[in-house]
Amino acid sequence: MSYEQQLRDDAIKTGDAIKTLFDDQMTPASRLAESMIYATMNGGKRLRAALVLGAARLAGDGVEPVGALRVAAALEMIHAYSLVHDDLPAMDDADTRRGQPSCHIAYDEATAILAGDALQTLAFEVLANPATHDEAGVRADLVLQLARASGLAGMAGGQMLDLEAETRPFDLDDIQRMQSMKTGALIQCAAACGGIVGGADQRLMDALLAFSGDLGLAFQIADDLLDYQGDAATIGKPTQQDADRGKGSFVSLMGMDEARHTANRLIEDAIATLSPWPEAGYLAFLAKFAIVRRS
Amino acid sequence: MSYEQQLRDDAIKTGDAIKTLFDDQMTPASRLAESMIYATMNGGKRLRAALVLGAARLAGDGVEPVGALRVAAALEMIHAYSLVHDDLPAMDDADTRRGQPSCHIAYDEATAILAGDALQTLAFEVLANPATHDEAGVRADLVLQLARASGLAGMAGGQMLDLEAETRPFDLDDIQRMQSMKTGALIQCAAACGGIVGGADQRLMDALLAFSGDLGLAFQIADDLLDYQGDAATIGKPTQQDADRGKGSFVSLMGMDEARHTANRLIEDAIATLSPWPEAGYLAFLAKFAIVRRS
Repeated sequence: MSYEQQLRDDAIKTGDAIKTLFDDQMTPASRLAESMIYATMNGGKRLRAALVLGAARLAGDGVEPVGALRVAAALEMIHAYSLVHDDLPAMDDADTRRGQPSCHIAYDEATAILAGDALQTLAFEVLANPATHDEAGVRADLVLQLARASGLAGMAGGQMLDLEAETRPFDLDDIQRMQSMKTGALIQCAAACGGIVGGADQRLMDALLAFSGDLGLAFQIADDLLDYQGDAATIGKPTQQDADRGKGSFVSLMGMDEARHTANRLIEDAIATLSPWPEAGYLAFLAKFAIVRRS
Repeated sequence: MSYEQQLRDDAIKTGDAIKTLFDDQMTPASRLAESMIYATMNGGKRLRAALVLGAARLAGDGVEPVGALRVAAALEMIHAYSLVHDDLPAMDDADTRRGQPSCHIAYDEATAILAGDALQTLAFEVLANPATHDEAGVRADLVLQLARASGLAGMAGGQMLDLEAETRPFDLDDIQRMQSMKTGALIQCAAACGGIVGGADQRLMDALLAFSGDLGLAFQIADDLLDYQGDAATIGKPTQQDADRGKGSFVSLMGMDEARHTANRLIEDAIATLSPWPEAGYLAFLAKFAIVRRS
């Protein structure tokens, strides 16, 4: 199977796993459940899930560990919650997401707030459930890593800094810090959690962290490049929003050529980190994919 | 020490513990950290923390287990997050909370959304951290119980149903189901998590669940009674809001006398459940306190 096909398969498997996890949730709050499913089903390429699964299979010597798909689903739930809340009128005020109405447009603002809230909760519930791994130490570690990556010192803190970037000038260090929290932390966490659920040894874990750290930064630089070059029809959301708001970005502070060069160099470094593992081809493919993607 | 004094002490200890947990969080997102502290420091009587600590001490034969205070802090963080989000303009649109400006008034709406988000995350981070308990199985179980109580089938789902109660008639079963999810689940979870961190045996755990199930329902009936009787100056938030919106409540569907009678009977039942444990006096006090509180 080609890596492209593997990525498509992983996205489909993860979407199916998320649906199954909702089937397990008995609740009379059916509108909330529907809005959560809506927010998770328009999942794009599911890069974070693919990173979990790729790292887990690498750690498991080619065999996918039992709970890896649940971990992938949990990462995608956290990512989906962040998109639902980021799109709210009080935040980025985006009416569309990947070409579809945002959650608060398809439902309403209150429902979207609760959908994001409950998606976050469900991610932790899934990780802590014994079905994810038979060792409680692994489950608790997965929760801890995901919480650290997505909270005050990670994704949520990064979104706060991103909002502040509209009110004061950010230099390149500020941008890098903000982006490493807002986007990088969860991408790195995806690879790390894949390693954890797959039982990676310390050497592989260190390599996965270095790999995904470079990848996360390159991913965000590529996103900035896309924002300058892209058009709404291609990427499915309004473009140049950040530029129009006068916010600094990698591209505005580095220039297009330097930004492109840096992203390529980071991906080369990321791939080189995994070169001692001959089975790391899928992760290397994901790294390259992350900077050429168009949706 | 009187039970009143114990309750005050537990509230102060929990507030201090929450502050300390923020000291451990290194983040450049200082405005977000401030707003989260703001939202957790106006904590009222901290009934949920007291239930955690009371149940944990009962399970620990009078000695407070090491991580019990961290568990109490986590429960209060979840409660605080729910209040911050419930107060948002798109939800209950409340400008004050316990006599102080709501988080989105003191800061702004985007910050309040993120503060709630990151408080939820921090609660799970605290529970999953090895400092909470040296057995990973206990930590994973705490995360699982808190997630189940606060997500789609618990608190968030209950808030969704509460919003729907404004658009369609709710009968007494609907109200009870909604309230048991919205408020009862977290109150019950507080007692259960206290039992878990204190190493309660199955008999005590069953009793704690029965006790806190009755308590949670009585608490909400008392809240409805307060809403009909109270005045804004006493309880620190706008009153009769629910009644003004034409929403059903325990009081509107049962009448004042029947509601008061039911709440009292539930508290008697709750206390009776714990009668085999002579050291359960504090929990019995908390049950009585929960229906006579004024703030």
